[in-house]
Amino acid sequence: MKISELAQQAHVPVSAVKYYQREGLLPPADKTAPNQTDYTETHVRRVRLVRALLGVGGLTVAAAKEIIAALDTSPTFDVFGIAQYAMGVPKASGDEPSEKARQRILDLANKQGWDISEGNPGWAMAARALEGMWTIGVELDGDYLSAYASAASTVAAADLGALAKLSDPDRQIEVMVVGGVLGHPLLIGLRRLAQEDSGRKLFPCSE
Amino acid sequence: MKISELAQQAHVPVSAVKYYQREGLLPPADKTAPNQTDYTETHVRRVRLVRALLGVGGLTVAAAKEIIAALDTSPTFDVFGIAQYAMGVPKASGDEPSEKARQRILDLANKQGWDISEGNPGWAMAARALEGMWTIGVELDGDYLSAYASAASTVAAADLGALAKLSDPDRQIEVMVVGGVLGHPLLIGLRRLAQEDSGRKLFPCSE
Repeated sequence: MKISELAQQAHVPVSAVKYYQREGLLPPADKTAPNQTDYTETHVRRVRLVRALLGVGGLTVAAAKEIIAALDTSPTFDVFGIAQYAMGVPKASGDEPSEKARQRILDLANKQGWDISEGNPGWAMAARALEGMWTIGVELDGDYLSAYASAASTVAAADLGALAKLSDPDRQIEVMVVGGVLGHPLLIGLRRLAQEDSGRKLFPCSE
Repeated sequence: MKISELAQQAHVPVSAVKYYQREGLLPPADKTAPNQTDYTETHVRRVRLVRALLGVGGLTVAAAKEIIAALDTSPTFDVFGIAQYAMGVPKASGDEPSEKARQRILDLANKQGWDISEGNPGWAMAARALEGMWTIGVELDGDYLSAYASAASTVAAADLGALAKLSDPDRQIEVMVVGGVLGHPLLIGLRRLAQEDSGRKLFPCSE
């Protein structure tokens, strides 16, 4: 198909397709003639994916590029590696979390029966958040942390369950990557809604 | 106390205190003499708060400034407003979510029995995430979304429960603000750990 058809099917302007191409986010089209290119269904899917990552996913072009490169070059069905990669380590203070904070997360993971590796970036992320709380003198009790861990288990089981329903490995990878990026705002958005509700129920007089 | 004592008690270098001050993140100290300033416990707490927001919270100076301004000027115990504010609306495509996506989130909230307002920014955030999924052809089933909503309820109840245990309203506001910012990486970090665990259990052969 022509670039105009590609743009139409992917619901973006032609200028967006050209931009993605300049940035190396799209695989090259087949050249059917010196001045004619032939795009395929694969391109439509890719344009949609890029649009989702840059738009609602809020990723920078550089981050989207890294993900696309991982998708294109991944030699094996390394879906977890790619997903971890795709979710990106958020900018935080460069400080390594303390041994005490890491240990606290490990205890929590053990209580949940999680089988996890040392290299999982979630570890440092959660430990640094804990430390930030400690910095301002907030000591979270075990119930609080257990509630967070059990919520994390619930969403992770849903994430992986949705993945297991797909039979095409390429599709699984794509969904894992996008789900990794978009599950984040979904969860945080719902948390805000639920906080308002909990707030109204707990502090009925504060409005 | 002197600036050097303030820095020591808040575990930051003196240069950081000066920087926070230049950026308007610290209330002015009492001038005891033309060249001498007197910092108090309030300053120590504030420096710790700013450090947590900028460091582990990953906020920009501008975002931290807005939060600090809200804390300093909030005339009433408007803790929910401040917290919503503090959590910031993450950068996403400027597109308003479609009516269909908003409705889907409303249905989900109703099923959970949430009492929420139209203006809650979580709404647009969650709806846009859903739309991003639809863009790449992922239709999330009701079980998946219910799992996310119930996880959000679990953490929100823990957030508000922790808050209710504090008796000082100033402290409640502070914890709500920091918890709003730091609860986010805590949850996302734990989700990553739980995903690894779920992945190992669901796809034992993929490694």
